[in-house]
Amino acid sequence: MSDVRVDGSRFRERFESFNEIGATESGGVNRPALSDENREARDTLVEWFEDAGLSVTVDEMGNIFGRREGANPDLAPVLFGSHVDSQYNGGRFDGIVGVLGALEVVETLNDADETTERPLEVVAWSNEEGVRFQPDMLGSGVFCDVFDREYAYSREDKDGNRFGEELERIGYRGEAPCEPRDLHCYFEVHVEQGPFLEQEELPVAAVEGVFGFSWMNVSFEGQANHAGPTPMDMRHDALVGASDVIQAVRRITATGGVDLVGTVGSLDVWPNAINVIPETVELTVDFRSYDDAAVDAAVEQIEAEIAHVAEREGLDYEFEQIMRVDADPFDADCIETVVDAIEERGHDYTRLVSGAGHDANYLNTICPTSMIFVPSVDGISHRESEFTEWEDVLVGTDVLLGAVRRKADEV
Amino acid sequence: MSDVRVDGSRFRERFESFNEIGATESGGVNRPALSDENREARDTLVEWFEDAGLSVTVDEMGNIFGRREGANPDLAPVLFGSHVDSQYNGGRFDGIVGVLGALEVVETLNDADETTERPLEVVAWSNEEGVRFQPDMLGSGVFCDVFDREYAYSREDKDGNRFGEELERIGYRGEAPCEPRDLHCYFEVHVEQGPFLEQEELPVAAVEGVFGFSWMNVSFEGQANHAGPTPMDMRHDALVGASDVIQAVRRITATGGVDLVGTVGSLDVWPNAINVIPETVELTVDFRSYDDAAVDAAVEQIEAEIAHVAEREGLDYEFEQIMRVDADPFDADCIETVVDAIEERGHDYTRLVSGAGHDANYLNTICPTSMIFVPSVDGISHRESEFTEWEDVLVGTDVLLGAVRRKADEV
Repeated sequence: MSDVRVDGSRFRERFESFNEIGATESGGVNRPALSDENREARDTLVEWFEDAGLSVTVDEMGNIFGRREGANPDLAPVLFGSHVDSQYNGGRFDGIVGVLGALEVVETLNDADETTERPLEVVAWSNEEGVRFQPDMLGSGVFCDVFDREYAYSREDKDGNRFGEELERIGYRGEAPCEPRDLHCYFEVHVEQGPFLEQEELPVAAVEGVFGFSWMNVSFEGQANHAGPTPMDMRHDALVGASDVIQAVRRITATGGVDLVGTVGSLDVWPNAINVIPETVELTVDFRSYDDAAVDAAVEQIEAEIAHVAEREGLDYEFEQIMRVDADPFDADCIETVVDAIEERGHDYTRLVSGAGHDANYLNTICPTSMIFVPSVDGISHRESEFTEWEDVLVGTDVLLGAVRRKADEV
Repeated sequence: MSDVRVDGSRFRERFESFNEIGATESGGVNRPALSDENREARDTLVEWFEDAGLSVTVDEMGNIFGRREGANPDLAPVLFGSHVDSQYNGGRFDGIVGVLGALEVVETLNDADETTERPLEVVAWSNEEGVRFQPDMLGSGVFCDVFDREYAYSREDKDGNRFGEELERIGYRGEAPCEPRDLHCYFEVHVEQGPFLEQEELPVAAVEGVFGFSWMNVSFEGQANHAGPTPMDMRHDALVGASDVIQAVRRITATGGVDLVGTVGSLDVWPNAINVIPETVELTVDFRSYDDAAVDAAVEQIEAEIAHVAEREGLDYEFEQIMRVDADPFDADCIETVVDAIEERGHDYTRLVSGAGHDANYLNTICPTSMIFVPSVDGISHRESEFTEWEDVLVGTDVLLGAVRRKADEV
């Protein structure tokens, strides 16, 4: 049975066809959660699931499941998949590889006329990206009881459209309860979104866990005044305070641990006029590491820097940690199952920790979980230029096939 | 004649009544150029001008002139005034003091039944603030042939409304040509918008000139990427580049000359998301000094800093000086006329240079000009908390009266 392999040309054809939905001129896709393009992508997916003989269920959060019955239907299923929502003008690989790859695994088993002991379920989670509705990973989050369903329904996009109503509008507010259930394990193939595999010239990685992270909101309030007649020593410039934070984030990462990263991603200035000293600046800080102590130390240090600069510049400040997620090691047995599948196929590989969050993080709280990474060219993701070599997509999907078959025959 | 003085209670009553138009809850006014509130303020002003016996003319730019005939109508008039448009949620003194003060000068001469040799004209210039339509000082700019009328008409606010059409809408697109004409001189009373008079406990200053300034647009383009899996040494973070510019502006002002000031007032980040490394940042730099060589040196230094940080961070950058206005000394004779009027009244005073631009700058290019400053409490302007003690407003207006009378009897 170890010679069963995914069909590269069928998969490729579907991948290209799928990515015509919401295709952008610069080679990306624009299919944010619950948009019309996201609906079209979902419709296509459901059609293909049904064509592959899968029994389709849509749950209350719009998560789409396709079930392939096992020899023992009462055994807990092996679940695998990812997401099909995209960033605004995002890439063609993020999420999609993991969902269409899951479908290809099913098709391959169909071609081989192979029935697994356990049922298989493929899944496309709702709103993984979190660009239209925050927080991200909302579909898997409710499924794993991290968020309440009504909380998820109440999330609004920037135009005030609510998640629950938009889900209804596109016809994907299903009947099935969105709640934890008995799963044998969960696998997800995803693009790395980082540079390591490409740097090491490796086609695939077994993912051992996910970085912990802290998200912080910071605001400074100084005094707006005319940029001409106000001497430098009478200023209370909120943007000068913010510039210290940006530089402090970099200083802290330089000494805070080998994998510590820090980012000021969002910054807004008021009144934001060329000739007015900035009165208010709101900014965010993001620290991540696989070492939770390193994240906590960085948070402590940046708060001290903020207090210091606020005193020096005569600014008021607010500092709030709005999210703190611990580092999340995946299941040892699932990781080794992925490694065995890779070795069986003779690929070079490494073990990686993911800097980004994935639906797999939440699944890991309710069942044994691991992930499979394939390379991202130049480490780029969340952009139209995101790219993964097709042969690497096939390697990752073939490893998923191997891992799923191993787990699906455990009784 | 030197005992003729403005009537403080009449002036105060008008000032309070005028500032009910567009009054904000926090004690400021919101009457941006060509808004409905600006129209109401203009209507009130025209009514009061006519009540004072002034002959009112509105020109093509909506500048409002009120003429009081002189004994020799053929002589070039003495012009004085300021503006009645405000910042969004701006203060009650900026501009208004100079226009209502000009009207009070006329009323005082009416009460004294005094006819000057030269005609007098009071003026309210359009769009001095430049917050709704850029650039600022548009009305006086067209009047002094700095801008073309059609260029001014084509300026759009952020909702795409054009200056010319909005002027028409509020009924202030007049027939009189807006172009340079023969003027004997121009005076303007204005709040200082800086801290010097208050620090020195002086009620009034003769203004000798205005700072030169440079306005620059800077943009950095790096690479958006996920804030988690992207190691620090592979980042091209446009906001880190921008933070260096903010800090360099401060360093440059510390050594660039005693009156050099520098400000990054506006900064926009894209995509501006908590978990995405900033790809693009656009920001502005403003340098000002009465020493043009200091401004030019600062511009040269900041461009070098920008090139340096762009190279270090692997960013593309653009640098453009979008405006460069030389330091502008006012007319020596007009300055001495103001000084004489102050000394005649026995006030303590100083001579100041203005850090901010005023309509007087443009007038200075077509006729002898000077200004009179009154104190700004805490140096604050462009905010609802802007404040000037009423007795200081009266001192400034009384000095205007004295200066106008001296110049108006020159034949």
